[in-house]
Amino acid sequence: MTAPFVSRGGEAQGFALLVHGGAGAVAAERRPLHAEGCHRAARAGAEVLRGGGSALDAVERAVRALEDDPLFNAGTGACLAEDGHVELDASIMEGTSLRAGAVCALARFAAPVAIARAALDDGRHVLYAAHGARLFALERGFVEVPEETLVTPAARAAFAAVRAGTGATGWAGGTVGAVARDLAGGTAAATSTGGMINKRVGRVGDSPLIGAGTYADDDAGAISTTGQGEGMIRLGVARLAALTMAGGASAAEALRSAIEALHSRVGATGGAIAVDRRGRWGWARSTATMSWAVVDAAGEDGGI
Amino acid sequence: MTAPFVSRGGEAQGFALLVHGGAGAVAAERRPLHAEGCHRAARAGAEVLRGGGSALDAVERAVRALEDDPLFNAGTGACLAEDGHVELDASIMEGTSLRAGAVCALARFAAPVAIARAALDDGRHVLYAAHGARLFALERGFVEVPEETLVTPAARAAFAAVRAGTGATGWAGGTVGAVARDLAGGTAAATSTGGMINKRVGRVGDSPLIGAGTYADDDAGAISTTGQGEGMIRLGVARLAALTMAGGASAAEALRSAIEALHSRVGATGGAIAVDRRGRWGWARSTATMSWAVVDAAGEDGGI
Repeated sequence: MTAPFVSRGGEAQGFALLVHGGAGAVAAERRPLHAEGCHRAARAGAEVLRGGGSALDAVERAVRALEDDPLFNAGTGACLAEDGHVELDASIMEGTSLRAGAVCALARFAAPVAIARAALDDGRHVLYAAHGARLFALERGFVEVPEETLVTPAARAAFAAVRAGTGATGWAGGTVGAVARDLAGGTAAATSTGGMINKRVGRVGDSPLIGAGTYADDDAGAISTTGQGEGMIRLGVARLAALTMAGGASAAEALRSAIEALHSRVGATGGAIAVDRRGRWGWARSTATMSWAVVDAAGEDGGI
Repeated sequence: MTAPFVSRGGEAQGFALLVHGGAGAVAAERRPLHAEGCHRAARAGAEVLRGGGSALDAVERAVRALEDDPLFNAGTGACLAEDGHVELDASIMEGTSLRAGAVCALARFAAPVAIARAALDDGRHVLYAAHGARLFALERGFVEVPEETLVTPAARAAFAAVRAGTGATGWAGGTVGAVARDLAGGTAAATSTGGMINKRVGRVGDSPLIGAGTYADDDAGAISTTGQGEGMIRLGVARLAALTMAGGASAAEALRSAIEALHSRVGATGGAIAVDRRGRWGWARSTATMSWAVVDAAGEDGGI
């Protein structure tokens, strides 16, 4: 894994919806698929904003689209833990009143971000783990699905390769996330993942942790991260980037600084997307690839 | 619950070990017991530092002492979730290389902070949840204990009162934590809790979350928080205070600012302890009480 430290940013028109499909090293021939999946999800989220909807609703919609896309390591398409089962992590936060919801180590639900959103709306607690997350989801009317509907042939093959020692890394890539700023200036962020291939049972990464994988604050901006989750947790990357933006840095500047610190302070690689309080969007990565797409009132852009 | 915004700080001599026994509202007649429990734990941790040991070993020792003390809501003495069972959360972090370990929603282990420490030492993952945390603990040689050995008559009575509607709040108070700076300038922090009385099954608070309840960075300082955990998570209090100290603020200044922001931004109350990179210690609270004690090479202080 190289550390190219690529970053990019722009000024959004009207509203902004930015998604990522995970930092990693996607093979060249599959890169157009990943970029197109991000474009589709960004458009779905942007439709919410174009109609005057909230950043919170928009990031949930975009991440749902990515969870449902079997190409990505979230919801359908999630990677397998060392026991061969799926354990999902997701979080969502809105920046106007700093409400947040999250689930971790959750099995057999197709849309973890929607359960995280239900926790945010409920408001009693922020984060639910494992069996308790399942009970909360069932109580809110979410339906358990057979695990085999979430597991793709690609996820099984990647797991088998890592177990056989022929897979280069336990890092799946393909975590998904979205950030948005709506027409009223409200911000939100959401992140969802299956975690690492062959992770230990019960391992929780940065994606469901407010301040590590996800953060939103209208006085700063909204952030979603992807990459080596343990490093993201140890550096508190999303909270760090939010505070950098609160100090006046643009989304792209804050993320470039955070991803460089991720390398220099904890020796980890990854990427992140953000939109700041002024509506500037940006991303940064120190991995070979990170698929992304942005949509605003004037058009769209994206790549990998 | 009043919001008195009390804070205090001092300059440590040689080394510093500071503990808290939870923000809350301890009844007047029981306050001396809580303060004395903190003094005992701070002395135990300080012995490690006096002998040239690391801040990491010292905070683990101090938090172990508080977990074993049935007076506090951590390890033995933990409060009960809505199903009448114990679910424990703990984390530990050292500030020299930003290593961290944590467990959440863990049942039937007497010393969660020691399991968090084992995760830190192992290094593969940072955070383990529920069943997976149990598997990790058993693999590392920790022994499950009968739940009834962890549950005190006071915890049962408090749970019964909340369930009967005669307890004023689900907030147990009594979370414990420690921060330290060793003779080599290394910092560390640890936090452990049973969470909230009558919490939903699987609810995870701030205590096991790096950047919410616990953070350590030798370039900033070390922090452990206590109070309304959901608010601590939403504001990312430990990471916020670390970045304030990295900018030059003293421990007491950083915590006063963070606890005030906890009130103004998310309407929550709580407290925190910290030691900064220059060895200044401090605490702040917006609750009626927070037991605490500090020991350095020159002596000790404490109260509630």
